[in-house]
Amino acid sequence: MAAHHWILSFACDDRPGIVHAISGAIVSCGGNITESQQFASSTGRFFMRLQVQADAPRIDFERQLGPVVDHFDMQWQLDDVGRPLRTLVLGSTAKHCVSDLLFRQREGQLEIDVPLLLANHETLQPIAAFYGIPFEHRSVTDEASKRAMEARILEVVESEDIELVVLARYMQILSQDLCEALAGKAINIHHSFLPGFKGANPYRQAHDRGVKLIGATAHFVTSDLDEGPIIEQDVVRVDHSQTTRQLQQIGQDVESRTLTRAVRWFAQHRVLADGDRTVIFR
Amino acid sequence: MAAHHWILSFACDDRPGIVHAISGAIVSCGGNITESQQFASSTGRFFMRLQVQADAPRIDFERQLGPVVDHFDMQWQLDDVGRPLRTLVLGSTAKHCVSDLLFRQREGQLEIDVPLLLANHETLQPIAAFYGIPFEHRSVTDEASKRAMEARILEVVESEDIELVVLARYMQILSQDLCEALAGKAINIHHSFLPGFKGANPYRQAHDRGVKLIGATAHFVTSDLDEGPIIEQDVVRVDHSQTTRQLQQIGQDVESRTLTRAVRWFAQHRVLADGDRTVIFR
Amino acid sequence: MAAHHWILSFACDDRPGIVHAISGAIVSCGGNITESQQFASSTGRFFMRLQVQADAPRIDFERQLGPVVDHFDMQWQLDDVGRPLRTLVLGSTAKHCVSDLLFRQREGQLEIDVPLLLANHETLQPIAAFYGIPFEHRSVTDEASKRAMEARILEVVESEDIELVVLARYMQILSQDLCEALAGKAINIHHSFLPGFKGANPYRQAHDRGVKLIGATAHFVTSDLDEGPIIEQDVVRVDHSQTTRQLQQIGQDVESRTLTRAVRWFAQHRVLADGDRTVIFR
Amino acid sequence: MAAHHWILSFACDDRPGIVHAISGAIVSCGGNITESQQFASSTGRFFMRLQVQADAPRIDFERQLGPVVDHFDMQWQLDDVGRPLRTLVLGSTAKHCVSDLLFRQREGQLEIDVPLLLANHETLQPIAAFYGIPFEHRSVTDEASKRAMEARILEVVESEDIELVVLARYMQILSQDLCEALAGKAINIHHSFLPGFKGANPYRQAHDRGVKLIGATAHFVTSDLDEGPIIEQDVVRVDHSQTTRQLQQIGQDVESRTLTRAVRWFAQHRVLADGDRTVIFR
Repeated sequence: MAAHHWILSFACDDRPGIVHAISGAIVSCGGNITESQQFASSTGRFFMRLQVQADAPRIDFERQLGPVVDHFDMQWQLDDVGRPLRTLVLGSTAKHCVSDLLFRQREGQLEIDVPLLLANHETLQPIAAFYGIPFEHRSVTDEASKRAMEARILEVVESEDIELVVLARYMQILSQDLCEALAGKAINIHHSFLPGFKGANPYRQAHDRGVKLIGATAHFVTSDLDEGPIIEQDVVRVDHSQTTRQLQQIGQDVESRTLTRAVRWFAQHRVLADGDRTVIFR
Repeated sequence: MAAHHWILSFACDDRPGIVHAISGAIVSCGGNITESQQFASSTGRFFMRLQVQADAPRIDFERQLGPVVDHFDMQWQLDDVGRPLRTLVLGSTAKHCVSDLLFRQREGQLEIDVPLLLANHETLQPIAAFYGIPFEHRSVTDEASKRAMEARILEVVESEDIELVVLARYMQILSQDLCEALAGKAINIHHSFLPGFKGANPYRQAHDRGVKLIGATAHFVTSDLDEGPIIEQDVVRVDHSQTTRQLQQIGQDVESRTLTRAVRWFAQHRVLADGDRTVIFR
Repeated sequence: MAAHHWILSFACDDRPGIVHAISGAIVSCGGNITESQQFASSTGRFFMRLQVQADAPRIDFERQLGPVVDHFDMQWQLDDVGRPLRTLVLGSTAKHCVSDLLFRQREGQLEIDVPLLLANHETLQPIAAFYGIPFEHRSVTDEASKRAMEARILEVVESEDIELVVLARYMQILSQDLCEALAGKAINIHHSFLPGFKGANPYRQAHDRGVKLIGATAHFVTSDLDEGPIIEQDVVRVDHSQTTRQLQQIGQDVESRTLTRAVRWFAQHRVLADGDRTVIFR
Repeated sequence: MAAHHWILSFACDDRPGIVHAISGAIVSCGGNITESQQFASSTGRFFMRLQVQADAPRIDFERQLGPVVDHFDMQWQLDDVGRPLRTLVLGSTAKHCVSDLLFRQREGQLEIDVPLLLANHETLQPIAAFYGIPFEHRSVTDEASKRAMEARILEVVESEDIELVVLARYMQILSQDLCEALAGKAINIHHSFLPGFKGANPYRQAHDRGVKLIGATAHFVTSDLDEGPIIEQDVVRVDHSQTTRQLQQIGQDVESRTLTRAVRWFAQHRVLADGDRTVIFR
C-alpha cells in the first residue's frame, strides 16, 4: 500500500506530448496510475484526471509536475483521494434536496463537510439540527436583505474555506456579482421537462400536457439563470394516472438524486469546465 | 380456448356504475375478462380498456353492449386482438424510423399492415422494395405540389381504409385542413432535449450546451406543430465525449424506438385521447 | 372530497361475475373507484385491488361487501389509504437497509410505524437512537439464545400488533416454526447475481467472474431459505474497473432500494400472494 | 483531417512507465490521441486501448511501437477504425439473434462482414437470402455429423479469414477441441435469470417463481458450457401479468440486444480478455 493516493486533474490547450510529459513526471517519482481518463474537446482544450499512488511526498510530486504544468500552461489541481470538500449549503423551504445531501453525507456516501446550512426561511432548522449541521437563517424580503444575505454568503465562503456552494432549492436569483464571485464552484438544481415549460407551476403544465418523463438538471450557476454548464441530468418515467401533486413528488425525488450525484462528482474532482460545457470523468 | 378474443375500449363522462354496467354486459354473454385497465381523469372523463374472451358471436356481445354505451354516451371501439392496423407510412429522406417500423412489422413484432410508403423523395425506395412494401414518390417543392401530396394522402386514407398515418420523419408541415382530417389517427416523432432548443441544428446546440440526455417524443399530429398530445417519450444518456454526429445517431436510435412503441400501442388500442393528454394502457 | 378513502384488495377463484358483483357493492353505497387493478392468474385465482372514495361509513360498505365476499369465498382486506403499517424491523450489523428504511419513514416516503428495531448485535443502536426508534439487542450465539430471540420476535408481533416483519439484513436463518408463524408477512432481502454464486463471499466471486450486473431480490420469507415468493428485484450495471469492495457498496445500495420498494408496496396492500408467485399492483 | 485513424489495444504485465513509453511512440510519429482508456487489473495485467490519428504511414507507427511492445512484452493489435470484422454466424432455428445482427449490419450499425451463415437447420435460409448473406445448412444428428459440422466451421474460419464466430442461438455444445481452436474469438449468448434456473424450460420456471427481471448474458465460448468470460449482460423488467410465452419473447429481445452489443464492442476492439474476466472499454 503506497503512502499517498492523489487525484490530479488538469486542462490545457491540446497539443502533442501532454500524456507523455505527465506520465513522465509520474514515473519520475515512482508513482502508479490507478485511474486515468482524458478528453480532447472540440473546443481545442485537453482534459485529464488521474489517480496516482506513490510513496514519495507531495512536495516531490509537485516538483516533478512543475515544469510540465508550466510548459503546457495547465490549469491544475492536486488533491488527496477521499478528502471531504468544504461545502456551504443554501436552502429555502423545500427539504428534499437538503435531506438527501445530509443523509448521504452522514452515511459516508458523499465526501463533503458542511460547516453551515444557510437559509432564507426557518423551515430547515430541524433537519439541520437532526444531522448536527450548524444552521443560520436570514430573511430575504427586499433589496437590502438580499444584499445582506449575499454578503453573508461571501463571508462564509471566505471564513470557512468553502470550495463548493450548493443551491439546494434555494429559490433566490443570485446577483450578477455573486454569480461571478462563485463562478465554477456553485451548483444549482432545477426541474426539466420535455418539452420545457415556461411560467408558473410547471408540474401542472406537465400534467396537463401529459408528459411521460419528469426530469432534473444540475448545473453550474452563472448569471444566466438556469442556463449554466450542465453537470448531470436525469429523468423518471411517469404516466397519465399521476396527479400534479404526485408528479411534483417524483420530480423532487429526481431533483435530489441528480443534485447529490453532481455534488459527489464535483467533490471527487470529476467535473471540469469546458466553456459552456462540462467534462465529467465518471 | 374461447372462439373470440376482443379488445373493448371506451371513454365517457365519469359517473357511478360504469364498471358495473360494462361487466354486466360481459357476464351476460358469458365473456371472460383477460385484461382490464381503467382511469378516471381529472378532466372528468372515464377511460377503460378490456380484453374479453367469449364463445358468443360478436353480434351477441354488441347487443349486450348497446344499452350500456347508449346510457353512458360512450365513445367506444371493439376489435379483434391481434388484427393488424391499416397503416400509411409517410417518409422523406431519413431512413431510421422507416427501417425500424418495417423491420418490426416483418418480424411480427408490430401489428400493422402497410399498403403504402409515400414519400416526398426517392431515397426510401430501396428500403420499401427490400421489405416488399409498395412505394410512391411525389416531389413537394411548392404550394401546388404540397396540395397535390396532401390530396394524395387523403385519397390513400380513403381507398386503403387507413386507420393510422405515421409520419416517420416526414419533415413536411401538414396544412391545417389535413391535420383536422387526420385528427386522432396521425402520429409524428421529433427529437426532444432538456432544455429544449429552438432553431436550426438542435443536435449541435445540444452538443455545445453539453446536455447529458438526448430524447424523442411521439405525439398525435395537431395543427400546432410538434405540440400534439404526447403518446410516448424516451431519452438516452450521453456524455461530453460524443460528437454532434454521434449525438445525432443516438437521437435517431431513440426516435426509432419511441415511434415504434407509440405505433405498437396505438395498434393495440392502448392509446386513448383525453383532451390535450393521452391515456396509455400499457 | 369524500369522507373516506379505502383500499380494498381480495383474491378468490376466478369465475364470471366477480367485477360485476364488487362494482355493484361499491355503487350501492355511493362509492367512487379512484384506482383499480385486476389479474386473472394461470393458477386459477383472481386478484383485485381497488381504491374507493365514499361518504358512507365503513360499516355500510362492509355490509354491501358481505354477500359478495361470501359468495365468491374471497380472501379480502379493507384498509384506509395512507394508514401506516405496524412494522417490526430485524437487524444485525449491516446498517444500509435499516438506514434507508428509517430515513424514508421519517421523510414521509414510507407508510410504516416502527415500534421496535430488534437486533442480534448492538451495532445499530445509534441509528435507532438517531431516528427515535426503540432498540433492543439480544445476542444469538447458540440454539438456546436463538430460541429466545425467536420467542421474543413472536411476543413483539403479538404485543405490538405487528403486520409486517422486515428482515433488513438480519443474517439469521429463521426456524421452520417461525417461518410458518410469519408466513405472508415477513420480507427478506438478499443479493442476486447473473449467474448465481453459491458459497462464501459472492461479491468476490462476482468480481472474479467479471459480472456486468449486480442485483438484489426482496421476497417473502419461507422455510426454504432465500427462495420465497419474489416481491421485487433490481440490478445495477457495473464494469471491470470496480473492486470487490466497490461491488459490495453498489450491492448494498441496490439492496436498500429494493427492500424499501417492497416494503412500500406491501404497506399499500399492493402485494398479493399467488402460490409461489406474487401479484404486484404497482 | 489526418490520413490514418487507428485503434491500438494491448495488454501486458503492469509496471511503471507503460503509458509514458506508448505515448512517446505516438509523439514520435506525430500521432494525435483521439480516445484513450486504460485499466490496471487486480490480476496484475495492464490493459489499454487508444485511437490515434496520424499522417505517418502505418509502417512508421509500427517501427516506433516495436521497441515498446518488445520491452513490455505486450499482446497487441493495431487496426483501422471502422474496418468491418470478418464474422462467421452460426445459427439453428431461432431467428431473433440472427435477424438483429443482419439488420444492424445492413443498416451500418455493426462493423462486421458476414461471408457465411452456417446452420444445423434450414429455418434461417430465407432470412439469409433476404439480407443477401450466403447460407449453408448441415444437419447435426449424431457424432459423425457433429464432427463434420465442426470441421466445416474450422475450414470456413481458415478460408474466409474469420476473426469472430458468433453463436446466435446455435444450440449445439461445441467439442473441447473446437472451443480451444476458437478461444477468444467466439461469442455465445444465453438467457439469465435471478435466481438461475437449472433444467428444461427456464422461462416456465421463471414464470412459476414470479421473477421480476429477465436477462441475457453474452460471453466468450470456453469448454465450460455457458461459463466463459462475460462480455455483456442486460435485463428487462417483467411482472406477474406476463405469460411464459411473453416472457420468452421478452427474453429473446434482450438476448438479441445483448449479443449485438457484445459483437459491436468486439468488432471495435473494445473487449480484452483478462483471465476469467473481460475488460470492456466502452
